[in-house]
Amino acid sequence: MAIRTDLAIECREMFAEEISGVESLAHDSDGITVTHVKITTEEGAKQIGKPVGDYVTIEMDSMLIENEDIIDRVCNAVGDELKKLISSKNLNSVLIVGLGNRYITPDSIGPKAVSKVTVTRHITKEAQMGFDFAVRAVSAIAPGVLGITGIETSEIVKGVVEHVKPSLIIAIDALAARNIKRLGTTVQLSDTGICPGSGVGNNRKELTEKTLGVPVIAMGVPMVVDVATLALDVLGKKECRADLNTILSDRSKNMIVTPNDVDEISEKISTIIAEGINTALHS
Amino acid sequence: MAIRTDLAIECREMFAEEISGVESLAHDSDGITVTHVKITTEEGAKQIGKPVGDYVTIEMDSMLIENEDIIDRVCNAVGDELKKLISSKNLNSVLIVGLGNRYITPDSIGPKAVSKVTVTRHITKEAQMGFDFAVRAVSAIAPGVLGITGIETSEIVKGVVEHVKPSLIIAIDALAARNIKRLGTTVQLSDTGICPGSGVGNNRKELTEKTLGVPVIAMGVPMVVDVATLALDVLGKKECRADLNTILSDRSKNMIVTPNDVDEISEKISTIIAEGINTALHS
Amino acid sequence: MAIRTDLAIECREMFAEEISGVESLAHDSDGITVTHVKITTEEGAKQIGKPVGDYVTIEMDSMLIENEDIIDRVCNAVGDELKKLISSKNLNSVLIVGLGNRYITPDSIGPKAVSKVTVTRHITKEAQMGFDFAVRAVSAIAPGVLGITGIETSEIVKGVVEHVKPSLIIAIDALAARNIKRLGTTVQLSDTGICPGSGVGNNRKELTEKTLGVPVIAMGVPMVVDVATLALDVLGKKECRADLNTILSDRSKNMIVTPNDVDEISEKISTIIAEGINTALHS
Amino acid sequence: MAIRTDLAIECREMFAEEISGVESLAHDSDGITVTHVKITTEEGAKQIGKPVGDYVTIEMDSMLIENEDIIDRVCNAVGDELKKLISSKNLNSVLIVGLGNRYITPDSIGPKAVSKVTVTRHITKEAQMGFDFAVRAVSAIAPGVLGITGIETSEIVKGVVEHVKPSLIIAIDALAARNIKRLGTTVQLSDTGICPGSGVGNNRKELTEKTLGVPVIAMGVPMVVDVATLALDVLGKKECRADLNTILSDRSKNMIVTPNDVDEISEKISTIIAEGINTALHS
Repeated sequence: MAIRTDLAIECREMFAEEISGVESLAHDSDGITVTHVKITTEEGAKQIGKPVGDYVTIEMDSMLIENEDIIDRVCNAVGDELKKLISSKNLNSVLIVGLGNRYITPDSIGPKAVSKVTVTRHITKEAQMGFDFAVRAVSAIAPGVLGITGIETSEIVKGVVEHVKPSLIIAIDALAARNIKRLGTTVQLSDTGICPGSGVGNNRKELTEKTLGVPVIAMGVPMVVDVATLALDVLGKKECRADLNTILSDRSKNMIVTPNDVDEISEKISTIIAEGINTALHS
Repeated sequence: MAIRTDLAIECREMFAEEISGVESLAHDSDGITVTHVKITTEEGAKQIGKPVGDYVTIEMDSMLIENEDIIDRVCNAVGDELKKLISSKNLNSVLIVGLGNRYITPDSIGPKAVSKVTVTRHITKEAQMGFDFAVRAVSAIAPGVLGITGIETSEIVKGVVEHVKPSLIIAIDALAARNIKRLGTTVQLSDTGICPGSGVGNNRKELTEKTLGVPVIAMGVPMVVDVATLALDVLGKKECRADLNTILSDRSKNMIVTPNDVDEISEKISTIIAEGINTALHS
Repeated sequence: MAIRTDLAIECREMFAEEISGVESLAHDSDGITVTHVKITTEEGAKQIGKPVGDYVTIEMDSMLIENEDIIDRVCNAVGDELKKLISSKNLNSVLIVGLGNRYITPDSIGPKAVSKVTVTRHITKEAQMGFDFAVRAVSAIAPGVLGITGIETSEIVKGVVEHVKPSLIIAIDALAARNIKRLGTTVQLSDTGICPGSGVGNNRKELTEKTLGVPVIAMGVPMVVDVATLALDVLGKKECRADLNTILSDRSKNMIVTPNDVDEISEKISTIIAEGINTALHS
Repeated sequence: MAIRTDLAIECREMFAEEISGVESLAHDSDGITVTHVKITTEEGAKQIGKPVGDYVTIEMDSMLIENEDIIDRVCNAVGDELKKLISSKNLNSVLIVGLGNRYITPDSIGPKAVSKVTVTRHITKEAQMGFDFAVRAVSAIAPGVLGITGIETSEIVKGVVEHVKPSLIIAIDALAARNIKRLGTTVQLSDTGICPGSGVGNNRKELTEKTLGVPVIAMGVPMVVDVATLALDVLGKKECRADLNTILSDRSKNMIVTPNDVDEISEKISTIIAEGINTALHS
């Protein structure tokens, strides 16, 4: 058992001192904090435990539920940061991939966002005349999870990629955080793709430019904290001897810390992700 | 506007007389009627308007809701008939494809059944020791619909097929019937695959052995009747002049006849389909 | 079997000529038509088949789905007309009652709207300082249906009314229309309360000022057309001999005509109802 | 912050020694442990922190998900223990009350169970001839929560009780446990009714024989552990100084520990509760 987090910002926070090959820059505005963590060298990557790349974290001051009018500003922030991250990419054909299990609410952000994204790949040239924005070929799939499909997610995505031939992939996933204050209040963007072990305890093979042949942007939302991670934090330790197992019982592997209104939060935050993508691609 | 039905049995019923190249045989048992319609020649196929092949229709006497204990018997009947239909096929690796839109209840049978099927393709040899049946490699996907993915369903399925390399495909879909008594009470199995125009008014490119390279078994459940079809039947006609359009208004294209408890029926009948598949493949 | 409709406007449309004691006035604006039908005498009520009172029908030109930006205007129209209808009432304490079965999508408008209404009855005087509108005591219940509770809806409402002691009740229900063009595009307001036989085929005892002791405003949304009503309309008859039964089979009682995207429509239209109420009561 | 639990068995477990006025007896059978905690004196009640009465806890060895065939045995155990608990009561008319918020999955056990219970109060004497069991007048309501209704749950229940005049009430609620191993694996029955503070952090006024005038049986299922409770347990303390607040942040009030598949567990366990009630009342 060890501290677990899918957020680069939290990996960075574990170090008080400067790390060679890792830059970090934050700015606040109107209740929203945007932090850029850049991992520029393999040495920095090894220290932090995340691949070389850009990680952008967008955090809200307050829970969505308590402050409805923050939603529009977060949508804009997500759209703006995503736009910057993909500005150098070929956007002719973008495939959105919604990872995770739609039947497990904290893991359902990806499939929910997919159902809310504006897809355009199937719209004929004639029909596109009716739109007031440049229509890019956007498509979207929610491949499901290994336990329901019996197929590695990466295999399904590869098969679709070979037919759709996108120039860019945006993969959406639910993440695990270390700090409960980030649950349902944070969006992480990165240009590194998705690596195994993300999400609610499901190992998946990686979805990266290396494996798929096109750049992969990852959009993640921390929805859970591991029970073991919380316990280690409470104890002030980074790793733990066997005695924690006795307290937590072996069932803690199946338990998560999550917001009590996770149903409503997953609806709202998947809308934010989808709107951010729509803004970045269609305007 | 014309009579629409996806059921071979209803196409056959439109003819009072014998049709060359079409055989039909029914037997009743305990509230369940099983009818085999065999189309053996291209001439018969042309007459009936369905491809050459075997069509098996399993009908319940009563609505599921009124008679809970019929469910087990229907599961068995579906499992038995499916087993016969696939007995000559290579069952080493079976891919279940759940067609339709999960967000439109009468069209959601396919995705719902996929989530209830027992998948085994990802289970290691060691883990399989724990099972008391011969474990075949069963996998399952719900590819979504064009309006949500922007990708033709057939493209997604092809991509997955190329990676999974199944020896048989079973495709599940919601169908349109002509007769309202068949809604939610009927299952059609066939060895012809899925051809365009099935389901709730969505054109999809075909999923057949010709296009996918492996045999495709279709399992369909009629969940809707077209409003125009009902109107024509009430009028006692097979086709119709413009005046029906005036009565129905052009919004009738978006309207369907469906059971008022379609939410509950789609849950139950997708369970029947999944259990039928589990029985046929895993015992 | 006879033509069935819960809409006063459709009852009025059945007569080409003027009816004594019934006034009707319509005005269009920007894709929305508002029609007032006033039944002023018992003679008029008898002719029309609806109680004496004011009936306001708000109709959209197009399906919600095809024209998203009409939603705001419909919300405003519903709020404005509701405000006029309740302008002479005591609004100190308003109880919203969401009728219908939440597990049957076309009947779920009432319970869905209740979950979206802003309730304030439980907010303390201190907390109310934070609101920028005059806070009325608004409460809301979804009493369920007889088949699930075993209790007449009117009994549950009476019990709650005796404790909450509202000065006005607003009851929301799904309705049956005659014309399919009105499904999911129409809202009916009236000051007559709810009388038995409304909704998706469920008889309920009436909810009126006579039975509850306080004025009852009804808000209804037609979500279904009876299969028999559609058949009679197609045949151009108002009532029907036994032969229609043979065509429709006795299962037609359990069948409805409804929009194929009823899941999405019921979400959107219940939001419109709730926003209309929020506007009328809290601004 | 202090250890929180709604389970009498966990209150009892906090004491190593015997407590005067508190008896405890457990027996195991086939993967199910049934423990009776009897609080017989006010002194015992004060020590334990629960009212005088009988508390029966039914615990499964394994998670439901891992062991499907345990479900039937748990249903029977719940039915048997409930039958014993109500054996001395007047069962002519039983009102089931499903507490909690149906829109928050871990709090939705009550409303979900209500929708699955067999109600009979509305069935006429003639119709009852068709049943093969003695038909008692069973009714059921899900009153909603204060935040959605604006009305105290106890007020709604009182109003309904005055009209339905039941001879017994069975109230179902989601509970908080101390030990994560009990989440989704445990049912607590008691003859004490429901007291404030149960469920997912919502204060409700009590539902007891004292307030409602008829005996109230409580059926509860622990679905969450407080984050603070978990933290205190990890630290090996019963209460805590301010420093824990710093680690947990004030957002921990909105966070819960819950099974990651809480969606599926809440479906299954609400079925177990409903089947247990059906068995106890209708056979």
